[in-house]
Amino acid sequence: MASEFRRQLPALANKTYFNYGGQGPLPSSSLEAMVAAWQRIQELGPFTDEVWPFVETTVSRLRQRLAHWLGVPPARLAFTENVTSGCVLPLWGLPWAAGDELLIGDCEHPGVVAACRELAHREGLVVSTWPLGDLRGDPAATDAAVLQRLEAALTPRTRLVVLSHLLWNTGQIMPIAAAARRLQAHPRQPWLLVDAAQALGSLPAQAAAQAADIYACTGHKWCCGPEGLGVVALSERLLAEARPTLIGWRSLSHEGAAESGFHRDGRRFEVATSCIPLFAGLEQSLRLLEAEGTAEERHRRIQARAGKLWRQLQALPAVRTLLDVPPPAGLVSFVVDGMAPGALVSQLGQQGLWLRSLDDPPCLRACTHITTTDGELERLVEALAALTAPAEAP
Amino acid sequence: MASEFRRQLPALANKTYFNYGGQGPLPSSSLEAMVAAWQRIQELGPFTDEVWPFVETTVSRLRQRLAHWLGVPPARLAFTENVTSGCVLPLWGLPWAAGDELLIGDCEHPGVVAACRELAHREGLVVSTWPLGDLRGDPAATDAAVLQRLEAALTPRTRLVVLSHLLWNTGQIMPIAAAARRLQAHPRQPWLLVDAAQALGSLPAQAAAQAADIYACTGHKWCCGPEGLGVVALSERLLAEARPTLIGWRSLSHEGAAESGFHRDGRRFEVATSCIPLFAGLEQSLRLLEAEGTAEERHRRIQARAGKLWRQLQALPAVRTLLDVPPPAGLVSFVVDGMAPGALVSQLGQQGLWLRSLDDPPCLRACTHITTTDGELERLVEALAALTAPAEAP
Repeated sequence: MASEFRRQLPALANKTYFNYGGQGPLPSSSLEAMVAAWQRIQELGPFTDEVWPFVETTVSRLRQRLAHWLGVPPARLAFTENVTSGCVLPLWGLPWAAGDELLIGDCEHPGVVAACRELAHREGLVVSTWPLGDLRGDPAATDAAVLQRLEAALTPRTRLVVLSHLLWNTGQIMPIAAAARRLQAHPRQPWLLVDAAQALGSLPAQAAAQAADIYACTGHKWCCGPEGLGVVALSERLLAEARPTLIGWRSLSHEGAAESGFHRDGRRFEVATSCIPLFAGLEQSLRLLEAEGTAEERHRRIQARAGKLWRQLQALPAVRTLLDVPPPAGLVSFVVDGMAPGALVSQLGQQGLWLRSLDDPPCLRACTHITTTDGELERLVEALAALTAPAEAP
Repeated sequence: MASEFRRQLPALANKTYFNYGGQGPLPSSSLEAMVAAWQRIQELGPFTDEVWPFVETTVSRLRQRLAHWLGVPPARLAFTENVTSGCVLPLWGLPWAAGDELLIGDCEHPGVVAACRELAHREGLVVSTWPLGDLRGDPAATDAAVLQRLEAALTPRTRLVVLSHLLWNTGQIMPIAAAARRLQAHPRQPWLLVDAAQALGSLPAQAAAQAADIYACTGHKWCCGPEGLGVVALSERLLAEARPTLIGWRSLSHEGAAESGFHRDGRRFEVATSCIPLFAGLEQSLRLLEAEGTAEERHRRIQARAGKLWRQLQALPAVRTLLDVPPPAGLVSFVVDGMAPGALVSQLGQQGLWLRSLDDPPCLRACTHITTTDGELERLVEALAALTAPAEAP
């Protein structure tokens, strides 16, 4: 039975889609909301006293809703173009000292890793890596191992820890709140940067967003909003300690005056003109998701579908899932003996089944969302079975 | 007679609009192009092997077209969210030494000024200001004065000069190519950062874009594209000398590997996910402008309308234009004796006439585009005449 939400997703009508972690499908009513916003801006503006209340309402309504999703006051949010900007803008504003150590999980996205390396290069910092990619067990064992390894990896110079909420390759959930508590007990109280690209819209995010110093999200993956709009939640202490980085009229407390000083709230990390209709589109996507259940309920549905896929994959002799247990969220990663992930993605794509391959570790990744049906899981498993079946004896 | 272009602009149907320098009206076919791009992305993707050629074509087609508008190779362009990011991203990547001097025109936008001050704060640089706001004469006199003052303002420590192509307050055109030639003769060959927010779409931009090290533009003002997409043209030497700043998968030469190094071309300053449909929208707006004439022809039409307004304003006793001569482009700034600019903007707005006020110098600014009609000029002048007429004797 297709849900009301699924009926709004034209992207799912002509393919079998498992790439929600790459980009989510856009609901037709979210596109309509963007078109309506553009038309309204043209009717009232685009640059008149009459359009500013509409722009302000559109932005603040989304800020309020995301504040609720993230469990933090609206003033602690900054809108960004994408999740990487949300990670890096505040990071570059922190007061670094040469020799400070950045401790980065080994499952972080290459964009964030490269940004940390560049920062280290410029400021004379040390980058260390922290192994997480080999954790294959259940949530309790994973949490314990993460905290144990964090303990082992921390040094007296550690100043920042970088960790995704939901690891984009293995699909494990990281114990963000517990890690934050451990860091508070460290003499230097290292900042905690959380890449939540895979988390917002797939997991309840509040506890982690409240615990992190930088909790960077995007609207275009699990939230099914338009591409080009993200949000970052910032801790009180980060707002007190970090200077703005890129700077424009939106960073300034009075946009007409360079000497006015910067906003004290999250807006100090906003830069200049963004695309306002995207705010209306993301707002509508979030509304549609809310109508499908609470964050906890949606997470359980996502997890149930991922678990079903994981179990069906166990029956295929050539397939090995990365995790030894059903996944804690919606990412199901696996390898197929003797087949390159990229080639297999192409072969499945020719049948209208869309997964992606990852480089590290080399694997395929299938994402399940609340929209994923039993029929889609069956089609994927059958296609994998056919592609991996040993050639019949003549 | 309304042009074909004007008929595509719903924003102009219900108001008399003079704020092109704030935000340009969006053509209906540009909105349609964005909707079509979103629909095509949903049909092919949003994250599949089948969608990447469409995304790549959409981006590279706009890159080619903008390269033509700017007269530089496509590889020297970086797309940004807005003009401020285009100014600041490369700026923060340059190799600074404590004591280097930033020479900033006194008519620069507060966002860019604040960014330069923050950079100076962090890197121990010196910010000097260079007076340009009092230049009221014709282009030849202005060019000569700008170059003379540049000569006087340069010091042996000057490392960067910041100058808008078209000053957003007085509306004067700056001699960018001549200034660049002067800087090349300076022992330290200072970089030249040009804020072209008011230039692209209103002036021929090629000579200036070829001469500058950083020539930052936005699509949403004179080009009448959607808000949220800009482009910056970078010189060969800037690409050789500047490191990337914000960093994401789009900066990396292989997006899956942090150690792959950065793109050698303009893309090293691109960050991560942007909104692809905006590229289709801006492309369509540029096509429509091209159909109205060459950049030179459109500039002449814009200038003719501004000149007409400037001359009509001379007949109003209470109005003083900022310039002593008809404006060289489409910005007509003026003050009204005894009336605060902000209050006057509101009063005109109540009559459906939209200008903006500026803080420095305090003034009103009316922009004329190729769409501006004689009727619109008359309505504005009549409204100003009525508002500024001395009260009749009883």
